Amino acid sequence: MSVGTLVLLRHGESTWNAENLFTGWVDVPLSEKGEKEARRGGQLLREAGVLPEVLHTSLMRRAIMTANLALDAADRHWIPVRRDWRLNERHYGALQGKNKKQTLEEFGEEQFMLWRRSYDTPPPPIEPGSEFSQDTDPRYAGLGPDLPLTECLLDVVKRMLPYWDEAIVPDLRTGKTVLVAAHGNSLRALVKHLDGISDEAIAGLNIPTGIPLRYDLDEDLKPIKPGGEYLDPDAAKDAIAAVANQGR
Amino acid sequence: MSVGTLVLLRHGESTWNAENLFTGWVDVPLSEKGEKEARRGGQLLREAGVLPEVLHTSLMRRAIMTANLALDAADRHWIPVRRDWRLNERHYGALQGKNKKQTLEEFGEEQFMLWRRSYDTPPPPIEPGSEFSQDTDPRYAGLGPDLPLTECLLDVVKRMLPYWDEAIVPDLRTGKTVLVAAHGNSLRALVKHLDGISDEAIAGLNIPTGIPLRYDLDEDLKPIKPGGEYLDPDAAKDAIAAVANQGR
Repeated sequence: MSVGTLVLLRHGESTWNAENLFTGWVDVPLSEKGEKEARRGGQLLREAGVLPEVLHTSLMRRAIMTANLALDAADRHWIPVRRDWRLNERHYGALQGKNKKQTLEEFGEEQFMLWRRSYDTPPPPIEPGSEFSQDTDPRYAGLGPDLPLTECLLDVVKRMLPYWDEAIVPDLRTGKTVLVAAHGNSLRALVKHLDGISDEAIAGLNIPTGIPLRYDLDEDLKPIKPGGEYLDPDAAKDAIAAVANQGR
Repeated sequence: MSVGTLVLLRHGESTWNAENLFTGWVDVPLSEKGEKEARRGGQLLREAGVLPEVLHTSLMRRAIMTANLALDAADRHWIPVRRDWRLNERHYGALQGKNKKQTLEEFGEEQFMLWRRSYDTPPPPIEPGSEFSQDTDPRYAGLGPDLPLTECLLDVVKRMLPYWDEAIVPDLRTGKTVLVAAHGNSLRALVKHLDGISDEAIAGLNIPTGIPLRYDLDEDLKPIKPGGEYLDPDAAKDAIAAVANQGR
């Protein structure tokens, strides 16, 4: 028996995705393509009859705007919403604002892939007060020592899971359809937890942008179908391949 | 001493405003002009340094989208949000979907102005199941007998005030800057309450679209400056005159 339906939606292309820059916690907007992806995501929800009853997002513009556009397209713009920094993208430390291709050339394939895909090795920390740092951002003023200066995926898992347990699970337990609009790495962290993916295997998992990923969960909050179901499986397959080639 | 700052924002032009139709609870989108008004409202907030810390909206697309666009322009898209039907526009009963000019010609000036501006005379009720009725809309499924079939301004005051007391006032009491993004008549109902405007005088009060109206409130939640302050007073003056001529 399913307790509720979880729908994961990774934000559409941002202006910095388009420019191939490491973004992390830098709060860049969606590109025009990203806005289209978000609306298409909402149409997929509508066509599949998967109608979210509550929304959880990060504190970042690209996830918030993706949710706004998708829910508007699905005629669900009016549902309750909760936002939390724990759903934010991985903090990319000192790499934030740097070009991915240049970073690859400067540091070499091995270091580059370690920063991108290692489970427990974060990039160097960002310098407080520097251009792409968040230490004076009012939305994080309450975080104190929890404010990250860099993160690996393990760090994301650690700070995301308390929000899953305390905020998202209670909504699922009431039988609701819950939309989580977030980021490549906060969603990878969640999928790792849901599907019980190993620290090694998670490196190979990519989540495409703008295609809702549906999980029906059993009473132990385990996926009834491992890996869930993309609402547009063919587009998801193509997009997963494209994400794997980022930075090349 | 001020307990908190209240900012009222009436949604920008909707597609039905542009077509001169009675809208009420019909959930039409903003026009392109309305989207621009919303962004301009956000720029005014940003320029004035009036930075909302929490948002309250109706359940209607035109207020929600206005808030989304304004907060994005003010770099406050990440603040907590609460939505409630009690902030909805006045339900316009059987007039919903009708052309204002045709209604004026069909029923005459006296009846037309009574429906538009009488404090306690609602239009005829809408027929359940008819094209512009909300009786099968899932967002109102929980309302039961509270679901209006028509409303006068007095009805709006009655259903809006409990939300003011229970949801908005507690936010103000914590010293927060609170944004209420809503509609001509739900905001008139609120201003009537705040400024102690009589049942007669409220007929002459129009609130322009897209221009934030700021109230600093004392400990009794009374405006320190009666009538509040528009963040663009000149534009507000022009727009108030234009609203008064609607339907002509």
